[in-house]
Amino acid sequence: MKQRPYNFSAGPAALPAEVLEQAAAEMLDWHGSGMSVMEMSHRGKEFISIAHQAEADLRRLLAVPPNFHILFMQGGGLAENAIVPLNLSGGAAVDFVVTGSWSQKSFKEAKKYCDAQLAATNTADDGSHTTLPDPASWKLRRGARYLHVCSNETIHGVEFQELPDLKALGSDAPLVIDCSSHILSRSIDWSRVGLAFAGAQKNIGPAGLTIVIVREDLVGHALPACPSAFDYKTVAEHGSMFNTPPTYAIYIAGLVFQWLLRQGGVAELERRAVQKAELLYGAIDASGFYSNKVAPDCRSRMNVPFFMPDERLYALFLAGAVERGLLQLKGHKSVGGLRASIYNAMPLEGVQALVSYMTEFQARHG
Amino acid sequence: MKQRPYNFSAGPAALPAEVLEQAAAEMLDWHGSGMSVMEMSHRGKEFISIAHQAEADLRRLLAVPPNFHILFMQGGGLAENAIVPLNLSGGAAVDFVVTGSWSQKSFKEAKKYCDAQLAATNTADDGSHTTLPDPASWKLRRGARYLHVCSNETIHGVEFQELPDLKALGSDAPLVIDCSSHILSRSIDWSRVGLAFAGAQKNIGPAGLTIVIVREDLVGHALPACPSAFDYKTVAEHGSMFNTPPTYAIYIAGLVFQWLLRQGGVAELERRAVQKAELLYGAIDASGFYSNKVAPDCRSRMNVPFFMPDERLYALFLAGAVERGLLQLKGHKSVGGLRASIYNAMPLEGVQALVSYMTEFQARHG
Repeated sequence: MKQRPYNFSAGPAALPAEVLEQAAAEMLDWHGSGMSVMEMSHRGKEFISIAHQAEADLRRLLAVPPNFHILFMQGGGLAENAIVPLNLSGGAAVDFVVTGSWSQKSFKEAKKYCDAQLAATNTADDGSHTTLPDPASWKLRRGARYLHVCSNETIHGVEFQELPDLKALGSDAPLVIDCSSHILSRSIDWSRVGLAFAGAQKNIGPAGLTIVIVREDLVGHALPACPSAFDYKTVAEHGSMFNTPPTYAIYIAGLVFQWLLRQGGVAELERRAVQKAELLYGAIDASGFYSNKVAPDCRSRMNVPFFMPDERLYALFLAGAVERGLLQLKGHKSVGGLRASIYNAMPLEGVQALVSYMTEFQARHG
Repeated sequence: MKQRPYNFSAGPAALPAEVLEQAAAEMLDWHGSGMSVMEMSHRGKEFISIAHQAEADLRRLLAVPPNFHILFMQGGGLAENAIVPLNLSGGAAVDFVVTGSWSQKSFKEAKKYCDAQLAATNTADDGSHTTLPDPASWKLRRGARYLHVCSNETIHGVEFQELPDLKALGSDAPLVIDCSSHILSRSIDWSRVGLAFAGAQKNIGPAGLTIVIVREDLVGHALPACPSAFDYKTVAEHGSMFNTPPTYAIYIAGLVFQWLLRQGGVAELERRAVQKAELLYGAIDASGFYSNKVAPDCRSRMNVPFFMPDERLYALFLAGAVERGLLQLKGHKSVGGLRASIYNAMPLEGVQALVSYMTEFQARHG
């Protein structure tokens, strides 16, 4: 088939064409079962085999230790902003590091359930988020039930290149990371993490699936107000099947996990992410026309917001991009400009095509 | 293509083959967009057109009045068991009619949030649910914030043939119906209903999508503990896009809605449901071998649990059924026996094939 367009959406985002082709081929009859995966009882042996394989593959890809549960949930990151404090806060002290829109939302929602307090922020006087606060400066409260960090801010394009080591900073609090937009693009040091959550729709699969990876000892302490369907203990005890799980989304995520393993796993995907990000940031920085405002050591490998010197050029840029099969490059409304999300499913060729178009556009309009 | 097997799963359940064929054909490129529906930003014009069409078609199919919101949510019926009282109870009195496992679960979960009390039940001394309590006998509390009914109990196969008229019973409480397993198989009298919810995975589409249809005046009264992502007001104000909605599930549901309209709408589907149910219950009652224990005027048109006189026959029956392309007929573990779920997507020919096999099986083993 001819080359598909390159889709730079921040999420729901591009999926590997191989995965979509397999899903289309299996749509009416999964492995001779006579059923679409959508039509299977979640209690039947067919779907249970799909869910178990997906969980095992994810565990392998991210080297998740045996004392962590992998939960398949619903509601995305915005729901987890409530579900995490409902499960982990005990209504007590929780510290937040605010580094962009997503952690800001998490902080605000948590205040409904606990004594949430700001440990650090990168918010500049003009409201922008272009750096990351040094962990050594964070105000960590003794007895805080956890510390929340968004390890990659999708909208502002800032990413922790290393997770903070809270123990080394003198804190016993488990680290909670919202890693929605860079999960599976780099390894996770589980010795530093108590809970990681991710909406699937950025770097995994279809919207409607949320991945929660949580250390066993943090489960079983939910507030009375926590809905049963979102109590990690209930979800874990029922193997993510207390309520009917989003079966088709789990199946697609499982196909993505198998695709990732075929590519060489997270180490290989990280190598590619570095290569793609260096190409794009390098082109931006060298252009003297495009700009990215994030400090180089805080730049996200996944989400690259960038700007031009003249507001009137954006509509023209976007229209020309679509003509060349470069889709969904408009920046988030709160930040403006352009944004290229270059998740695992984006091949190097897609970034090369974008850079080539950027050069051409600058030559004509710069 | 050759005849697909007939899939009697209670949910996730069979979908029309036409819908699956269209989904497979559009998987890599929806309407020339170059994207799978899974890959589209939920804020983009392509997906917004899909979501708007799905909502408009559902509104038309069920004749939903303009003063009701249609919300696309996540978490299924079990999550709504918490989300409804979080939104509607105000922590005050709520009445429940318990007619099977699902309403029992709703009742239990609501106790976490409000003064939930039993208005009526059909629970027999042996724990079975085979009738429906006469609304004239219900204990309706003055000032109750709502009355909850499960209008079709998937596991026990009892269905309200008419929704109770609470006003005529002297109550001002809005009626809340969990109609997960028979939505779109019959019309809904909205003058009697304040809120209807349904997990999509039985009679609509893929698991992971929950439909909530709620009267405007009931929105905006959520308890402080309600997560923002599940506050009906927040969801309604954002057109079901406060958090990223389960986009692909909404797309498939939309294809099902269009299929339903092509069939002739809910009136035609109801006619077919009556025909299919009469055929199957008729065969059971006439057999002297198979039995269904539900009182005839309470029998579900969608979910038909049935039994044989000898426990040892079930494994044999199920194995022979699979050989004939009759899938997922095992009864729910809490009830045992067999169960045929004959939702909208099940053609009359599927029920005919089942009845024919039942006759053959009885001739050999009866």
